Amino acid sequence: MNNKLLVLGTIAYDAIETPFGKTGKILGGCATYIGLAASHFTSQCGLISILGGDFEEKHLTLLKEKKLDLEGVEQLQEEKTFFWSGKYHNDLNTRTTLETQLNVLTKFEPKVPEKFRDARMVLLGNLDPNIQLKVLAQMKQQPDLIVMDTMNFWIESYRDKLDELIAKVDVISINDEEARQLTQKHSLVEAAKDLQAMGPKYVVIKKGEHGALLFHGSNIFCAPGLPLEEVFDPTGAGDSFIGGFTAYLVQRKKINFEEMKTAVIVGSAMASFTVQEFGTTALEKMTFLQLAQRIQAFKSLTEFDIELT
Amino acid sequence: MNNKLLVLGTIAYDAIETPFGKTGKILGGCATYIGLAASHFTSQCGLISILGGDFEEKHLTLLKEKKLDLEGVEQLQEEKTFFWSGKYHNDLNTRTTLETQLNVLTKFEPKVPEKFRDARMVLLGNLDPNIQLKVLAQMKQQPDLIVMDTMNFWIESYRDKLDELIAKVDVISINDEEARQLTQKHSLVEAAKDLQAMGPKYVVIKKGEHGALLFHGSNIFCAPGLPLEEVFDPTGAGDSFIGGFTAYLVQRKKINFEEMKTAVIVGSAMASFTVQEFGTTALEKMTFLQLAQRIQAFKSLTEFDIELT
Repeated sequence: MNNKLLVLGTIAYDAIETPFGKTGKILGGCATYIGLAASHFTSQCGLISILGGDFEEKHLTLLKEKKLDLEGVEQLQEEKTFFWSGKYHNDLNTRTTLETQLNVLTKFEPKVPEKFRDARMVLLGNLDPNIQLKVLAQMKQQPDLIVMDTMNFWIESYRDKLDELIAKVDVISINDEEARQLTQKHSLVEAAKDLQAMGPKYVVIKKGEHGALLFHGSNIFCAPGLPLEEVFDPTGAGDSFIGGFTAYLVQRKKINFEEMKTAVIVGSAMASFTVQEFGTTALEKMTFLQLAQRIQAFKSLTEFDIELT
Repeated sequence: MNNKLLVLGTIAYDAIETPFGKTGKILGGCATYIGLAASHFTSQCGLISILGGDFEEKHLTLLKEKKLDLEGVEQLQEEKTFFWSGKYHNDLNTRTTLETQLNVLTKFEPKVPEKFRDARMVLLGNLDPNIQLKVLAQMKQQPDLIVMDTMNFWIESYRDKLDELIAKVDVISINDEEARQLTQKHSLVEAAKDLQAMGPKYVVIKKGEHGALLFHGSNIFCAPGLPLEEVFDPTGAGDSFIGGFTAYLVQRKKINFEEMKTAVIVGSAMASFTVQEFGTTALEKMTFLQLAQRIQAFKSLTEFDIELT
């Protein structure tokens, strides 16, 4: 058993507008959030991604300082980095995409470095299911755990490939509306059943400020959303969640429902930092001690005594 | 100390339409749901309400069989019982009122029976704040706990009287959108702070399928929403919640944050039964053993181990 975690995802520039302000071009992309979250639990996290010539040296330095392995990150000097800009509505639960420049993504042929082809766990961040499948195909041995994320765009336009991928993974992480969209079931309990029937033994349904649900057979675990005074920017919350979730598991011996429950809390705690500042700022600064304290806050938040007389 | 619980609220007939079907005229009203929930914890629950001549004997019998004290329930033979009909949308989280016939409510002058003027706790169900205030004014001594519920209609049209009432209560139970509407704060943490500044030491914010939050000073408790395979009819969920919540407390010696946490879980468990069938059906049938089992399910749903290495 090794502690290697292979992560597929975008490294991007984002421009974000929320009711609290707007940013210029800032570091973003699901592999960035996942990597920053994962770096707290493993020093053997390899990213698979693609960059343009405009990607700034300081951002490369940041990722390297967090001990993320960038051998699988290609840089095309003549192209530009993937760019996304979006605007969150007043409730912060919904957003409108203002602009998407795929740029380098149109030429993305993922190559898994030799040293990560035996990674214990693989985390397939939100991307074209064709690319997610190409990464899996390069593994030399079956990972202990394959985790995937996806979103509405792939559900609507790439359903066949998405189903092919879902059949191969152990954990699917998806938000509540997307779970309903994928299964055509309103009840999340029924949606999770249908998703398990498609392949994954574990289903994580993210509910934004309302927390997350973990389903495994007839077992259900509910992680609360930590009530925060201020949420500045939800971007990257789901990626931070799944990054913390998977990286927590990669350093644990067993993989079972009990471990997954704690992993969901770790992921929720990560996400709760991410949303408190724009972009990756809060996640970059967060210390392991702060994370541990926040996990304790999650515990206090839900503990109660029963004494029915 | 006595275990008397005084409940103000409507006893009504409802006609309900959900995506799963529609009912004819069925028993409803907040005092009905509150009373049925409370009957599991106290045999000294007195209702203050008003009925028309059309109120059926079998429904009076039902309330009496649950040992609810009806001395404070007036019946005007020449009038009709309050009637409400509504239609829930596909997500079950929102609804449209189709018809409201106030009927007897326009003549409602609440009279608290002598024996309940020293009740240990008072629960003011969702009604005109003028009527809620009139009940409080009849108490002979300050209750240990005054709990109130309200809704958007009173927030929009009776704000001054509502504020006067809120200043007098210990616990306000309100849903998330209404908390935001009342305080003009998006963050529920900030909304709860503002609500506490208005009077109540405890604030309960109901989030429907996403559970409920309890705030007291800087303490926060989060009760999950129990993931259910089928939700048939959300009518009365909030009333069952607050009925179970308050009735649990009335038979406990101390009133503090720890006890309130359990009370929130008891209320959540009550509500989880109510929504599983139309109207009061599930709540009428529920046994104390079933309730205890469901409370255990809430505990299992949120418990996890921390082992950060």
